[in-house]
Amino acid sequence: MTARLNSGCQAAVGLIFLFSLCRVAESEKLLVMPQDGSHWLSMQVVLEKLAERGHSIVVVMPENSFLMRTSEHFTVRTFSVPYTQEELDKMYHSIGENVFHSSPFLLKVFEVYTNITEFTDFVVSSCKSLLHDSKLVTFLRESNFDAMFSDPVLPCGPILAEHLALPTVYFLRGLPCGLDFQAAQCPNPLSYIPLGFTGLSDQMAFTERVKNFLAVPFHFVLCRIFFTNFEHLASDFLQRKITVLELFNNASVWLLRYDFVFEYPRPVMPNIVFVGGINCARKKPLSKEFEAIVNNSGEHGIVVFSLGSMVSEIPMKKAMEIAEGLGTIPQTVLWRYTGEVPPNLAKNTKLVKWLPQNDLLAHPKTRAFITHAGSHGIYEGICNAVPMVLMPLFGDQMDNAKRVESRGAGVILNIIEMTAKDISNALQAVIYDKKYKENIQRLSELHLDRPIHPLDLAVHWVEFVMKHKGAAHLRPAAHDLNWVQYHSIDVIAFLLAVVLLALIISLKCCLFCCRKCCGKGGRVSKKSKSKSQ
Amino acid sequence: MTARLNSGCQAAVGLIFLFSLCRVAESEKLLVMPQDGSHWLSMQVVLEKLAERGHSIVVVMPENSFLMRTSEHFTVRTFSVPYTQEELDKMYHSIGENVFHSSPFLLKVFEVYTNITEFTDFVVSSCKSLLHDSKLVTFLRESNFDAMFSDPVLPCGPILAEHLALPTVYFLRGLPCGLDFQAAQCPNPLSYIPLGFTGLSDQMAFTERVKNFLAVPFHFVLCRIFFTNFEHLASDFLQRKITVLELFNNASVWLLRYDFVFEYPRPVMPNIVFVGGINCARKKPLSKEFEAIVNNSGEHGIVVFSLGSMVSEIPMKKAMEIAEGLGTIPQTVLWRYTGEVPPNLAKNTKLVKWLPQNDLLAHPKTRAFITHAGSHGIYEGICNAVPMVLMPLFGDQMDNAKRVESRGAGVILNIIEMTAKDISNALQAVIYDKKYKENIQRLSELHLDRPIHPLDLAVHWVEFVMKHKGAAHLRPAAHDLNWVQYHSIDVIAFLLAVVLLALIISLKCCLFCCRKCCGKGGRVSKKSKSKSQ
Repeated sequence: MTARLNSGCQAAVGLIFLFSLCRVAESEKLLVMPQDGSHWLSMQVVLEKLAERGHSIVVVMPENSFLMRTSEHFTVRTFSVPYTQEELDKMYHSIGENVFHSSPFLLKVFEVYTNITEFTDFVVSSCKSLLHDSKLVTFLRESNFDAMFSDPVLPCGPILAEHLALPTVYFLRGLPCGLDFQAAQCPNPLSYIPLGFTGLSDQMAFTERVKNFLAVPFHFVLCRIFFTNFEHLASDFLQRKITVLELFNNASVWLLRYDFVFEYPRPVMPNIVFVGGINCARKKPLSKEFEAIVNNSGEHGIVVFSLGSMVSEIPMKKAMEIAEGLGTIPQTVLWRYTGEVPPNLAKNTKLVKWLPQNDLLAHPKTRAFITHAGSHGIYEGICNAVPMVLMPLFGDQMDNAKRVESRGAGVILNIIEMTAKDISNALQAVIYDKKYKENIQRLSELHLDRPIHPLDLAVHWVEFVMKHKGAAHLRPAAHDLNWVQYHSIDVIAFLLAVVLLALIISLKCCLFCCRKCCGKGGRVSKKSKSKSQ
Repeated sequence: MTARLNSGCQAAVGLIFLFSLCRVAESEKLLVMPQDGSHWLSMQVVLEKLAERGHSIVVVMPENSFLMRTSEHFTVRTFSVPYTQEELDKMYHSIGENVFHSSPFLLKVFEVYTNITEFTDFVVSSCKSLLHDSKLVTFLRESNFDAMFSDPVLPCGPILAEHLALPTVYFLRGLPCGLDFQAAQCPNPLSYIPLGFTGLSDQMAFTERVKNFLAVPFHFVLCRIFFTNFEHLASDFLQRKITVLELFNNASVWLLRYDFVFEYPRPVMPNIVFVGGINCARKKPLSKEFEAIVNNSGEHGIVVFSLGSMVSEIPMKKAMEIAEGLGTIPQTVLWRYTGEVPPNLAKNTKLVKWLPQNDLLAHPKTRAFITHAGSHGIYEGICNAVPMVLMPLFGDQMDNAKRVESRGAGVILNIIEMTAKDISNALQAVIYDKKYKENIQRLSELHLDRPIHPLDLAVHWVEFVMKHKGAAHLRPAAHDLNWVQYHSIDVIAFLLAVVLLALIISLKCCLFCCRKCCGKGGRVSKKSKSKSQ
């Protein structure tokens, strides 16, 4: 249903843009507690739009950050942290780069565990520093914010919101072990909702449903590893015992970077709003340098390749394998890579320290996207209808990759085992086998055919919570029930007891009547017996 | 957050309207199966907007209708029905008017039962006539529609959609016994979601939760009464056994006239879209006649009074009681009433055969709204922030009224028992006790603070289903599971069996080992015994 515009209407389009800029909302005060890494990049887009609409925004961030930076759009308040910039960068890169070391299974599990604990130690220490910065906390308390906007994946924001009694809008892809849905009182039937890290889809055979069920304790342990230190910190700081779930329970609105073109359809709650693909909003024309590369690619076009900001170095052997694979296709490959240049790098491959990923993917000459399957990259692939070669590294990336593959829009490669030939085959497939392009095109059309842009939706709900001091009318009464009450176990037990009691009484009555009758009969027969004698 | 517009921007607003008209979608063909009565009025607004956007619309309706009429916006195809216009009008009015006859409880239940069966007999006979109109059905088949848009509360549309294999968008307030949520595979926890006709809220004490649980069989019976004849008709027509639930299961998108300002927050599904308040969209300036009445009402303003289109006559005694009550307030009362004029009608009360309800409620001089608590009227009350006096008659109206009352935005009166004094007191309360106006104002602000107008949302989803031939990506995999699988009962049973088996084997092993050890010990001791002998 492409819009047909006549010339008169086209003139109006420009004015609409003018109008949207003019429609400045009454200024409200927003406290922002972001999350570092790629999470920050999509949140920043929302903050810029909110600032444009005249809100006063204060972002609290540690003095040393991986990707978070100051901006003219908002005030930044920093707090000191017990680690240097180098230590932080090293920690982030080590998560991305450890993946390339092949280890036995148990050692791998131990490595993942060490990575997670090292990471949470960093963020807990950062959060501790913030909460103990009494000057900053006093400033925040006295600022009388209208709401907090936070990425709560590592829940420093929720602790501060609880302390400042602020209504919250959470902005996230999802929480470990489905804690977001649990906190929103959203049903989560395990029979068709695959848990994270299982690699399952929503179409599960019996054995897969058993596997999904068995993943529950694993997720429980994961949650403990992730959140225990935060729970201690929250209880210490708020001076009362509080669980992470209780902290999350108070969310006014959950803005999930989630779209059912990519995720499996599932029950949701009225205060869960879906803004998947929000990161595609930021579009700029290509710089001259990139424009020249793309234009020089000829009829074959280009391939965009990035493993995300957390991977700066790849072992040389693997880098050479990749370089060899990339050299086999006629397309120009733009590879975001900051490590040592592989000596066998083919002429068609250009290494760059940074690339405007979404803008390049939006270019009609882009034929394929090689990605580590981070959710941001995948949404950019979907928005721009570019088929993908997926090289998942860690976290939710394997699940993301499986979803794209299950929809026939990409090919997964195992980053440790893949050879140059595998890379070449995968690229040839997604570029020349029409079905990949057709599938991603269909997903893209479904994704983009929405009543309102996710960025406007996010801005609306942040403003809503600021204006109305929360969204109490969207809070289900389930929050006031315990587990037994929620599942009506007390009601069922009571009704069963009543039925049982009624049965027993009926039975007793019957027995009593029978005995009466028989007794009477017996007496009668006795009497008649004695008479007959 | 009221928008501040500068003069330049104001010019743009007009152009946006022009733009929205210009944005004509590519024409698609839509088959519409509406529902008579007030349901039709809100659906008509959507049809008009769809027609404006260039779609070709065919509405199928019986030759005799209660409120449905032809329009320049769409093509109407009628089919003959085995009842006259008079019989139909009489049936509709009798439902509304039977309410005023006070009867003992059992007789009342019988009357309600008779009303429902009489009503379903009418609509089933109408549906039968349509399905057996082979010329019309052939025309519909050959028209190659892109989708069906239907109010499925009486499921003739779903039967036809199944026959024509058309994707469907359903537009409704809700189905009896929560069949809509059941068909959408939406969880429905009875612990905080009150069933219809129970008069319960989402905050239930233990005894209320028991009552809600006990209402399940009542709803089951109600569903049987409502749908059994349709099931027979569907099975006959489609020539295979089919249940109503199976018919509804295939819905692509559910557009529910539902808003959480008014309804209780509950789990939902991705293909359930909320368009509550959509009927407030149609706004026109008041006619000179009504404008004059409103302007002449002075500082006291007006009260709008309507018991809906199904009530044309009220027993004179009751009408006089009402007239007396209305006469006690200084406001001008506009009473939509077509029955005999009560002789004691006060000067402040004007009887009218019809009134532009939403436009009158939107007037700043309107102080209160006396309504039968139909969902349309209630949304108009909420949209326009007018406190209500609620006189529920039948169906969902008691539940609707309870919700408004529980939010402090209105007062309920029992239409049978109320006296002139009760009416007067209720009106004085909602007009002069500030809390009613404050509460309805708050509800109204929450309701109207939405990212997109429900009418645009409805139009978007109808167009989406037409363009993409459904919304398969929003269909949960739960549809492929049976009850046991959905609740993971097979998985739990299997895992319990495995645990039990493991326990038994472990126990057997322990016993075997013990026996071995004891036996060995015994043998050893025997040996040593014999040695010692």
